[in-house]
Amino acid sequence: MPVCVTDIERVAEDTVALFQGAESATVHEAQGRKGLLASYMRPIYRPAAIAGTAVTCEVAPNDNWMLHVAVEQCRPGDVLVVAPTSPCTDGYFGDLLATSLKARGVLGLVIDAGVRDIATLTDMRFPVWSRAVHGQGCVKETVCNVNVPVVCAGALVHPGDLIVADDDGVVVVSRQEADEVHSKVAKRLANEEVKRERLAAGELGLDIYKMRDRLKEKGLRYVKTLQDI
Amino acid sequence: MPVCVTDIERVAEDTVALFQGAESATVHEAQGRKGLLASYMRPIYRPAAIAGTAVTCEVAPNDNWMLHVAVEQCRPGDVLVVAPTSPCTDGYFGDLLATSLKARGVLGLVIDAGVRDIATLTDMRFPVWSRAVHGQGCVKETVCNVNVPVVCAGALVHPGDLIVADDDGVVVVSRQEADEVHSKVAKRLANEEVKRERLAAGELGLDIYKMRDRLKEKGLRYVKTLQDI
Amino acid sequence: MPVCVTDIERVAEDTVALFQGAESATVHEAQGRKGLLASYMRPIYRPAAIAGTAVTCEVAPNDNWMLHVAVEQCRPGDVLVVAPTSPCTDGYFGDLLATSLKARGVLGLVIDAGVRDIATLTDMRFPVWSRAVHGQGCVKETVCNVNVPVVCAGALVHPGDLIVADDDGVVVVSRQEADEVHSKVAKRLANEEVKRERLAAGELGLDIYKMRDRLKEKGLRYVKTLQDI
Amino acid sequence: MPVCVTDIERVAEDTVALFQGAESATVHEAQGRKGLLASYMRPIYRPAAIAGTAVTCEVAPNDNWMLHVAVEQCRPGDVLVVAPTSPCTDGYFGDLLATSLKARGVLGLVIDAGVRDIATLTDMRFPVWSRAVHGQGCVKETVCNVNVPVVCAGALVHPGDLIVADDDGVVVVSRQEADEVHSKVAKRLANEEVKRERLAAGELGLDIYKMRDRLKEKGLRYVKTLQDI
Amino acid sequence: MPVCVTDIERVAEDTVALFQGAESATVHEAQGRKGLLASYMRPIYRPAAIAGTAVTCEVAPNDNWMLHVAVEQCRPGDVLVVAPTSPCTDGYFGDLLATSLKARGVLGLVIDAGVRDIATLTDMRFPVWSRAVHGQGCVKETVCNVNVPVVCAGALVHPGDLIVADDDGVVVVSRQEADEVHSKVAKRLANEEVKRERLAAGELGLDIYKMRDRLKEKGLRYVKTLQDI
Amino acid sequence: MPVCVTDIERVAEDTVALFQGAESATVHEAQGRKGLLASYMRPIYRPAAIAGTAVTCEVAPNDNWMLHVAVEQCRPGDVLVVAPTSPCTDGYFGDLLATSLKARGVLGLVIDAGVRDIATLTDMRFPVWSRAVHGQGCVKETVCNVNVPVVCAGALVHPGDLIVADDDGVVVVSRQEADEVHSKVAKRLANEEVKRERLAAGELGLDIYKMRDRLKEKGLRYVKTLQDI
Repeated sequence: MPVCVTDIERVAEDTVALFQGAESATVHEAQGRKGLLASYMRPIYRPAAIAGTAVTCEVAPNDNWMLHVAVEQCRPGDVLVVAPTSPCTDGYFGDLLATSLKARGVLGLVIDAGVRDIATLTDMRFPVWSRAVHGQGCVKETVCNVNVPVVCAGALVHPGDLIVADDDGVVVVSRQEADEVHSKVAKRLANEEVKRERLAAGELGLDIYKMRDRLKEKGLRYVKTLQDI
Repeated sequence: MPVCVTDIERVAEDTVALFQGAESATVHEAQGRKGLLASYMRPIYRPAAIAGTAVTCEVAPNDNWMLHVAVEQCRPGDVLVVAPTSPCTDGYFGDLLATSLKARGVLGLVIDAGVRDIATLTDMRFPVWSRAVHGQGCVKETVCNVNVPVVCAGALVHPGDLIVADDDGVVVVSRQEADEVHSKVAKRLANEEVKRERLAAGELGLDIYKMRDRLKEKGLRYVKTLQDI
Repeated sequence: MPVCVTDIERVAEDTVALFQGAESATVHEAQGRKGLLASYMRPIYRPAAIAGTAVTCEVAPNDNWMLHVAVEQCRPGDVLVVAPTSPCTDGYFGDLLATSLKARGVLGLVIDAGVRDIATLTDMRFPVWSRAVHGQGCVKETVCNVNVPVVCAGALVHPGDLIVADDDGVVVVSRQEADEVHSKVAKRLANEEVKRERLAAGELGLDIYKMRDRLKEKGLRYVKTLQDI
Repeated sequence: MPVCVTDIERVAEDTVALFQGAESATVHEAQGRKGLLASYMRPIYRPAAIAGTAVTCEVAPNDNWMLHVAVEQCRPGDVLVVAPTSPCTDGYFGDLLATSLKARGVLGLVIDAGVRDIATLTDMRFPVWSRAVHGQGCVKETVCNVNVPVVCAGALVHPGDLIVADDDGVVVVSRQEADEVHSKVAKRLANEEVKRERLAAGELGLDIYKMRDRLKEKGLRYVKTLQDI
Repeated sequence: MPVCVTDIERVAEDTVALFQGAESATVHEAQGRKGLLASYMRPIYRPAAIAGTAVTCEVAPNDNWMLHVAVEQCRPGDVLVVAPTSPCTDGYFGDLLATSLKARGVLGLVIDAGVRDIATLTDMRFPVWSRAVHGQGCVKETVCNVNVPVVCAGALVHPGDLIVADDDGVVVVSRQEADEVHSKVAKRLANEEVKRERLAAGELGLDIYKMRDRLKEKGLRYVKTLQDI
Repeated sequence: MPVCVTDIERVAEDTVALFQGAESATVHEAQGRKGLLASYMRPIYRPAAIAGTAVTCEVAPNDNWMLHVAVEQCRPGDVLVVAPTSPCTDGYFGDLLATSLKARGVLGLVIDAGVRDIATLTDMRFPVWSRAVHGQGCVKETVCNVNVPVVCAGALVHPGDLIVADDDGVVVVSRQEADEVHSKVAKRLANEEVKRERLAAGELGLDIYKMRDRLKEKGLRYVKTLQDI
């Protein structure tokens, strides 16, 4: 029996705020290289960057009925995450649903399926990360679950998890780990800033990261030409 | 024996004019969800939107000879629709052919294959919807049909049919049905406008479309938490 | 045993200079339709256009260690060409490595794999042609060859070869043939300019290229309607 | 409004009989290289070969309701041809439907979507050509057309057309052209038999087809080694 | 920090025994159309059918080290389920690892990546469901988790869950639901048997399932020819 | 100007003989994980295994003319390796060409494109490794090179190189390295035989390869349950 869960726990607002401006790739690295959605999830316009809390929505193939149920569960600061129960690239979402989500303060949509009306969505500045752009409309016949854990583009997303999305793609951070991940992200950023300056000044990664000995150990040889081998 | 048909009947100019500004997804819905080309047909730049009458052109794989034959059949307001007789992503079309089509008043190209010179085509504002961008050149050895019905990206297109293309993709409207489809499009747009305002004001689709009872009937249950199931 | 070759011969600077502004598709045609990389190699932003000399780098799947070795081999005017030893779309390259390459005067990156930090790379105006955009990070465990011949996106690239890349894709010109290819490119461009003007004036390719007789010979028939067949 | 057409004209039984044993590739060649379905259409077991008359069936994505409507329209010697109205790989068809079709004398199924129960279908010797094997079940909510022209895997199929399918794939022959195509197939086969014997005896295609002069004309040079160029 | 969990709870042996011979598609239907792995997961030989308990194993791209760790966790009746942390089709598994698993009574392998030595695996009758067949070898450098929940080919698998795999593909049944699912499967099978007999006898699904009225209600019209519309 | 090179150097017959029965994956490992063709290259029937010397043939897209030129260059023990100059899945090769190759003692075909007549080829036991099965016929208009180095399915193949192909795929061994590679293959096989026996007897790879310490070093922890973390 399909359910819509109404009282989900979300990552705290303060924590979410810390992730504004964080890059999805950095977050992914910081939390041990997990939680990345498949690389076919692309933004409909660039640049685009959001960080918010997941409301999750299962949909049947070619059936966007449950999106309307999910809209009601959304609050300001949420990101709607939609996963079809079988692969589908139909156009589940267009400017009317975006208008409704925007009215509720939703930051964007992540959908492992198709989206349409992207010219209007771009004008509205409502960002969408999707598998496809497709004009194909949907029926409204099959009920599915809202706010249960879903697998979206290969990643497990629980309702209330943190979603960070930008031009590189989408990453999910588990609600329980969000604070810890943030402190790791902050360390990485500080660390990267120092390196960026040294690299910009012409220093080599080989030296900064002290790689030369280990490369030699693993057998790398430098030769002037291929004839020298 | 390959033929080039010279006297095709086109959708009337007045009717075509009514479709300027119509969205491909809306047209697709309005005519009963048919006529959409495959979602791999993407515009080379955005935004782009055209509505015009189809001149159709078959081409052999890696052979763009017939494009030159097709050019002569084009009139102002036409859209050239190109379908290879076997799947191919080579670059059939570039800025020289675009210059020729533009000189004849053609609005754009829809090609289930590759296109090249897209930087120049973008500067020229000559829109193309294609399956691929590819620099690979073609030979000129095999004759095929011009202005016969073709299957382009999975959709059947007759010469003279109406083509509506925008950022979402491409849809074909049969010549015989264009007027009827337009009145349906107009109704949808009016209807959508009302809904957009209500949704923007915060009303829910669940209420506007009166979905709550039917969802219940189909078994959707609302629970506070997953533990409540 | 993996090697890094340090003294590669590059296409002469003067020759490279001649290719600035040349289009990849034209270069591909001029050299007899060879050397084109697969059409899945797309630029991360548009427009983008470079011509430079190849430094080649093999990488293991999900392992970007050798990029650091390759950076040291790069000079101003080079293009880094990266080929994984097994298909992989992980994000091998981001803004830190780009900062390092830029500091050395490298013009861009061509990688048959994934790239990340594309928002920053776009801001930096460091162009990348890649198979994918992907946030997935890499390990640093396996040594491979630098500056040996590699197959990148289906094309054989020798270190020192000329790389021409633009919005259409990427083409490689063999070091030995670069001068000869340039003179062919120049001829094509002159020739195309004349044709462009004639086509813009409304002349048909059918007439300019004198195709009518050969089309007839190959059996093309003109009919008014399909009923006339 | 969706329709089911009940009185379709089929290719005559005698004509169909002539195609038993004909290969799809030969038929495709004989009719001027048209009518071939996309190469992703593969048989679920091999060898398999049928020739029969098409009953066509549109289906909505993830909705196999109309298959039941189509079954009733099938007669002995028919082949059921199924085309989804939007791309879908769900498992529309299994052993129960096959049992029903077999009871009516249907020869096989051609479906631009998924099929399941292939172990049982193989045991039953009920051949299926499909885009995918997929266990994913379907709903029964949306009505579509039966026995109207459909685009299936890129080819236009009219009800009553001839379908020839074997290990290479599927080809459709228009009802009006079936007799003419058959006589061309017969000629090809006779011709091929002679060539097969000569080739088996060691004669070269270069000589049998007298290709040497034309190859020379087009510029082919024979050299002992690459150094001789 | 990566972990290997040693004491996992498995579906009871008695319950697993009930699923021997059950078809993956039927199980998928019976449990409400969930748990199906992506359709690209294909068996290396046919027919093949197993039902067993999952030992789960994460692997880094191009790194099969953890398979050795996972082998030790396997017991008779287990199925090894392998999920790379980023998409990869390299050949993680061959006949040596199969020999080791077979020695431990493992029933088969489910891997969202590549497999090699398939000729030997076929001779050994060790079934594998994989995304690819690929000879590409792996390194042994990166540790990942064993026996934690993984997303494999789009489905969430917990260690100890039931895996049912056959010619159609792979489905996972949650440990907690296995008994309940089995009773639903049994009901379906009984029900299907009755239907199969009626269909074989020539009765139509339209009548058995009483679909005619609902089809009419939804607007399906029967016409003799398309001209009758 | 296209050339056909007639006097190529081949791997010595004695050396080739040593590779009969060697597995492609083992050869690939033995030569340092290089030379593997893309995993989309699949045999048309199984089991199939050959080892022979490469005759290489470029072909234009949808143009199989050069196959006839290449046939004449083939000797007993050769394998014909075909690479299109732009991606193409058309059916370049069927039973007539196979008859001709078989008459010359050719062992099989490796083609980065499509093949047809696979039922007959299977009956003839003429093995083919291809990217696709496709009935689509080709033209004979464009000359290309025969017996020059080609990139086939991502691997560089020189004429005369050794080709080893089996159910796993295809690997190329450079002519100059064939002897050295063989001795490495022999060592691997001996080594594998010992391991296979130990693994069959129930010993673990963890112990045979002494992996436990290094796993610990890299941070792997064993825990009874996830709650223990």
